[in-house]
Amino acid sequence: MQNILNDIILSNKKCTANGKVASYIPELKNANIDDLGICVIDKDNNIYCAGDYKKKFTIQSISKPIILAMALMDNEWHHVFSKVGMEPSGDPFNSIMKLETNDTKKPCNPMINAGAIVTTALIKGKNLQEKEERMLSFFRKLAKNNSLEINKSIYESEKLTGDRNRAMGYLLKNDGFIEGDVEETLDLYFKQCSIEVDVVDLARIGLLFSNYGIDIETGERVISENISRMVKTFMVTCGMYDASGEFALRVGIPAKSGVGGGIMASVPRKMGIGVFGPALDEKGNSIGGLNILEDLSNKLELNIF
Amino acid sequence: MQNILNDIILSNKKCTANGKVASYIPELKNANIDDLGICVIDKDNNIYCAGDYKKKFTIQSISKPIILAMALMDNEWHHVFSKVGMEPSGDPFNSIMKLETNDTKKPCNPMINAGAIVTTALIKGKNLQEKEERMLSFFRKLAKNNSLEINKSIYESEKLTGDRNRAMGYLLKNDGFIEGDVEETLDLYFKQCSIEVDVVDLARIGLLFSNYGIDIETGERVISENISRMVKTFMVTCGMYDASGEFALRVGIPAKSGVGGGIMASVPRKMGIGVFGPALDEKGNSIGGLNILEDLSNKLELNIF
Amino acid sequence: MQNILNDIILSNKKCTANGKVASYIPELKNANIDDLGICVIDKDNNIYCAGDYKKKFTIQSISKPIILAMALMDNEWHHVFSKVGMEPSGDPFNSIMKLETNDTKKPCNPMINAGAIVTTALIKGKNLQEKEERMLSFFRKLAKNNSLEINKSIYESEKLTGDRNRAMGYLLKNDGFIEGDVEETLDLYFKQCSIEVDVVDLARIGLLFSNYGIDIETGERVISENISRMVKTFMVTCGMYDASGEFALRVGIPAKSGVGGGIMASVPRKMGIGVFGPALDEKGNSIGGLNILEDLSNKLELNIF
Amino acid sequence: MQNILNDIILSNKKCTANGKVASYIPELKNANIDDLGICVIDKDNNIYCAGDYKKKFTIQSISKPIILAMALMDNEWHHVFSKVGMEPSGDPFNSIMKLETNDTKKPCNPMINAGAIVTTALIKGKNLQEKEERMLSFFRKLAKNNSLEINKSIYESEKLTGDRNRAMGYLLKNDGFIEGDVEETLDLYFKQCSIEVDVVDLARIGLLFSNYGIDIETGERVISENISRMVKTFMVTCGMYDASGEFALRVGIPAKSGVGGGIMASVPRKMGIGVFGPALDEKGNSIGGLNILEDLSNKLELNIF
Repeated sequence: MQNILNDIILSNKKCTANGKVASYIPELKNANIDDLGICVIDKDNNIYCAGDYKKKFTIQSISKPIILAMALMDNEWHHVFSKVGMEPSGDPFNSIMKLETNDTKKPCNPMINAGAIVTTALIKGKNLQEKEERMLSFFRKLAKNNSLEINKSIYESEKLTGDRNRAMGYLLKNDGFIEGDVEETLDLYFKQCSIEVDVVDLARIGLLFSNYGIDIETGERVISENISRMVKTFMVTCGMYDASGEFALRVGIPAKSGVGGGIMASVPRKMGIGVFGPALDEKGNSIGGLNILEDLSNKLELNIF
Repeated sequence: MQNILNDIILSNKKCTANGKVASYIPELKNANIDDLGICVIDKDNNIYCAGDYKKKFTIQSISKPIILAMALMDNEWHHVFSKVGMEPSGDPFNSIMKLETNDTKKPCNPMINAGAIVTTALIKGKNLQEKEERMLSFFRKLAKNNSLEINKSIYESEKLTGDRNRAMGYLLKNDGFIEGDVEETLDLYFKQCSIEVDVVDLARIGLLFSNYGIDIETGERVISENISRMVKTFMVTCGMYDASGEFALRVGIPAKSGVGGGIMASVPRKMGIGVFGPALDEKGNSIGGLNILEDLSNKLELNIF
Repeated sequence: MQNILNDIILSNKKCTANGKVASYIPELKNANIDDLGICVIDKDNNIYCAGDYKKKFTIQSISKPIILAMALMDNEWHHVFSKVGMEPSGDPFNSIMKLETNDTKKPCNPMINAGAIVTTALIKGKNLQEKEERMLSFFRKLAKNNSLEINKSIYESEKLTGDRNRAMGYLLKNDGFIEGDVEETLDLYFKQCSIEVDVVDLARIGLLFSNYGIDIETGERVISENISRMVKTFMVTCGMYDASGEFALRVGIPAKSGVGGGIMASVPRKMGIGVFGPALDEKGNSIGGLNILEDLSNKLELNIF
Repeated sequence: MQNILNDIILSNKKCTANGKVASYIPELKNANIDDLGICVIDKDNNIYCAGDYKKKFTIQSISKPIILAMALMDNEWHHVFSKVGMEPSGDPFNSIMKLETNDTKKPCNPMINAGAIVTTALIKGKNLQEKEERMLSFFRKLAKNNSLEINKSIYESEKLTGDRNRAMGYLLKNDGFIEGDVEETLDLYFKQCSIEVDVVDLARIGLLFSNYGIDIETGERVISENISRMVKTFMVTCGMYDASGEFALRVGIPAKSGVGGGIMASVPRKMGIGVFGPALDEKGNSIGGLNILEDLSNKLELNIF
C-alpha cells in the first residue's frame, strides 16, 4: 500500500500545474500550488501516508457532510428535510437562482452553500458560543484530534468577503428556511469552514463514515448507521460540486471536496482517505486530489458501482 | 374636467373589490380597500381633485423614479448606468434570478427593487444622516410640500421584514454594484419607500416631469430636461412592474405605481396625475388606479403613441 | 432636411466599422458592411433620401410589427393576446428559456421570434398559398409598392438553418399556442422575413403607422387607429431586441430593427423613417442605423417622452 | 425470498391509490391503477416472481440506460460525452431550460429526454431500418427474450404527441449535439420507448448490469465491465428523474424508472430486479415500485452506500 501511495503521488505531481489556488481570500492564495499529500486508514486501523501529508489546510466545504450529520443528530429527519432538499442541483455550489426557480424554493441539498447554511442553522445550542463549542467538539471527536482549531485569520477573511453567502442567508431567512439570526448562522458557517485539518484528520473522519459510525478503535457508536449512510449517499450525488456525476463515473467513491484543496473520501466497509492538493480545477475541486483518487480506485478496485 | 373626474371615480369604485390590499407588513393591511382618489394638475396649474383625495399613503415604489432623478443629478450618466441597466426585465419587481443569469449581473433597470437599491447607493452625502436629509428635501421640493415626512412605523416594519431586499443588497455588494455599507443603503431605501404622500403630491411631481423639469409656478429649473425625459422613459418601459407593457398598450402614459396603492403619472407637456386606490392586482398595481388612468387616457386622448 | 440627412449619413459612416454583418446564412454575409442609407417621408408626403438609399435588403424582424397588425385585423384582440403576451422580455430575441419559466409559458411579446411565430400562425387563409398571398399583398399595400417580392434564395437558407425557430415552433405547438401545422407556420414565417425592401418602403410603412393607419395620399383607412397605436407601442417597449430600453432612452421613437440591417421608425403624427446599414452591434441592431436615428431625433426633436 | 416478495406486494398494494396513471397518450391511460408486480433474478439465476408479474407494459425511459450502453459500445467514450454531459440536472426529465442556460448547452446527462435523444442519435446503422433492427436486437439480447416487440399503437401515439421532444430535437440539432436527421432520430427514440416488456425482462436486464456485463448463464461478455459500471452509476445519480437523490437516500440501489410504471434495478454483484406498478407519483415514478424497492432494500440489506 505504501508503495502504491508513493507512486500515485509521484505520478500526479505534475498535473497540479494545470490548476489554480483559490484566491477569493488572501490567506488561501498563499498555498503552495504543487503540494500533494494523502493518508489512507484502513478498517484494521493501519495508517499509510505519502507526499505532503503534514501540511495543514482549512476544511472548507468538507465541513458540509459533517454538519449535516450533526444536524440529523440534533433534529428529526423530517424536520431537516423540510428545510433542505435531497437532490443534486446541477448548478455551481454558490448558485442562488434555484432558490427562486424551484417550486419549493428550498436549497437543493446540504452539500451546496445554501443548503449548508440551512443545516448550520439547525445545530442546537442555547447561544452562538455553545453552538460553536458543540460544533468544534464534534469535529474533534470525528477526527479523533483534540487539537483541531479554527484558523482565526481565515475565518475573519471569510466573514469579510462573505456577501454572497450573506445574500443567500437573508433569502433563506425570508423564505422561512432558517430560523434565528442570519448573521449568527453565517458566523457559525464561516467558522466551520475555517477549521484547520490535515489529511490524517480527513482519513479518520472518512473511516468513521465508512465504518457506519462506529469508532474502529474503541467500538463506540459515534453516529448512527442510518445517518452515516445518508452522509455517504449525499457525498456521491452532490459531493464534488457540479462535477459530482463525473467523479462518480470515474472514481465511484463517496467523497467531499473543499476549496482549501482537501478531499475526504469514505469507501464503504473498507477505508477512509484524506487527500490534499490546493491546485483546483474550474469547478473548485483539487486537480491532484481527483487524479489520486481515480488512480487509487482503479488500483484497489474501490468503485462501489 | 371636474365632472369627468367625479364620473370616473364613481364608475370605477366597484372594481376595487377584485383587488387585495398589500399585506406584507401589518401597517399596509389596515388600508381601506375601496378608497379611490385622484388629483390632476394641468400645465396652467389648475388643480382638480375627486374621490378620497385627502387620504395619505406611503409612496413605496413611486420613490424609484425620483431617486433615479437624484442619482442622475448626483453622478455622471455613465457611472449610473455602469451600475444599473436600461432594459425592462419581464420579471417580477423583486426577482433575484436575473442578477445571476444576466451576462452583466447588473440589475436590469432602476424601477425594480434591485435597481433602486443601486440608485439609492449612489445618493451623495457625507453620512447616512446627510443622505437622508438631502433625499427628504428633494422629495419635498418636487412635491412642493415641506411637510412630507417618513412614516416611522412603516419604515420600522419595512426594515424588519426586508430580508429579501437585504439578500439583493448583499448580492449587489458582492458583485460590485453597490459601494459602501449595505445596511446603510437599505436603511435609506426603506426610508424613501416610507415617505407619506397624497394624490396632490403625486400630481405635482408628475407635473414637474411632464414639464421637463421646470417648476410651472416659479419657472425654476429643478431637474434637467434630459433627466426628466429619461425618468419618463423608464416609467413607460418599466413603471408598472411586469405589467408595464400592458399598461403602455391600454393607457400609454408614463406612470409609476407603488404597493401603497398610489400611481404617479406624467403626461408630456400636458399634466401631472396622482391616483390612489390600495386594492392591488396580482402584479402589485392599484386596480382602481389602472382603470381610472385608462378611462382618463381615453376621454382626454392622452396616449402618447 | 436634405442637408441634415446628408450630414448625418456622412458623420456616421465610420461607425459601421465597429459592427458585423449577419452571418448565420451565407446570403446575408455578402452585404456591404459600410452601406448606409436613409429615407424620410413627412406628413406632407415630402420624400427625402440620402446615402445608399437604393440598396435592397430583406426585411427580417421588421416584418414582426406588420404581421402583428395583420393578426390583430384577422382575429379578436383577446384571442391574439391569449396566445402571446404584452410584456418586454429582457432576453435575447431567440431565447427559449422564458417559454419554460414563465407562469403562462406564453411568448412574452410579438416582437421576439417565439411571439412572431404565434402571430404568424394567426394569419387567416384556407391554405398556405392563400396565407402567403394575403401576407405579401398586405406588405405591398403598406409599402405602396406592388413589386415587393420574397427573396427566394434567402428564404431557402432561412428554412434550411431554422432549427432554433423550429424548436420554438414545436414547443409552442406542444403548449397550445399555435394551432395548425408547425412546418407550414414556419414556412410562412421564413417567407415573411425574406421579403425584400428598401428604405423608401420602410419609411412608407412607418408613415402609415405614424398617421394612425390612414394613407396620407388617398385618405384611405388601411389599419385601425387602435391597431396602429398598439403596433407603435410594442415598437417602443420591444422593438430593438434587448436594447429596446436603451433605444427609448437615447432616441425615443417607436422603431423596429431587423438583422438584414434595416430599421423602420414611426414618429407619431410627424413622419416615417427607413434606415439601412448592415453592420450590426452585438444585440443585432444596425450600428449606423441607431446612430442616425439618435442624431435625427436630437436634431429634429422627435423624442416622444 | 418468495415469501418476502409476496408480503411486500401485499403490504404495498394500497399505496397505489395515491398515484396516477400516465395520461399524455390514451394508451397509457388504460393501465390498471392497482397492478403491482415484481421479479427478482439472483446471481445464481434463481427467478422469483410475485403479484402481477405477467403484465406487459412499455419500457419508456427504462430504455435510456440501455441506449446509453449501446451508444458507448458504438462510439468512443469521449465522443459520446462531447455530446451529452455526466451531471444530474435537478430539473424535470423534459426540461428545456438547461439547454439554454448551461455554459455548454449540452444536455446534462443521458437519463433525461434531451440526453437520450442525443445517445439515440449516436446509434450506428446505415439507415433508420438498420438502426431499428440493431436496437431491437440489442434489447432482446439483454432481456434474453427474442419476442420483445415495439407496441405499434403506443409508438404512433408517442410520435403524434411528441412535440416537446421534437422541440428538443431541433434545438439539439441547432446547437450541434445531434447529427443526421432530427425526425429519424426522434422516430428511433419513440420506438425505443415503445418496446413492450414485463418484469422478468427488466430483472434479466438488471442482472446483466449487476454482473458487470457477463451473461450469468452462458458466461458470454455482452457489455464491457466499464460500460456496465457507468450505466449503473448514471442510474444512481439520475435514474429516478428529479427524485434520484431521495431514492438514493431511501433505497440506495441503481435503478431506472419509466412512465409506463416499470422500474429496472441492478444490485451490484447480487441481483437484477424488475417491478411494475402504473400508479405514478408527481415526479413520474411508480409509487408502488418505489415502496417495494425500499422495503426490499431494507429487508435484504441491498443499499450500496
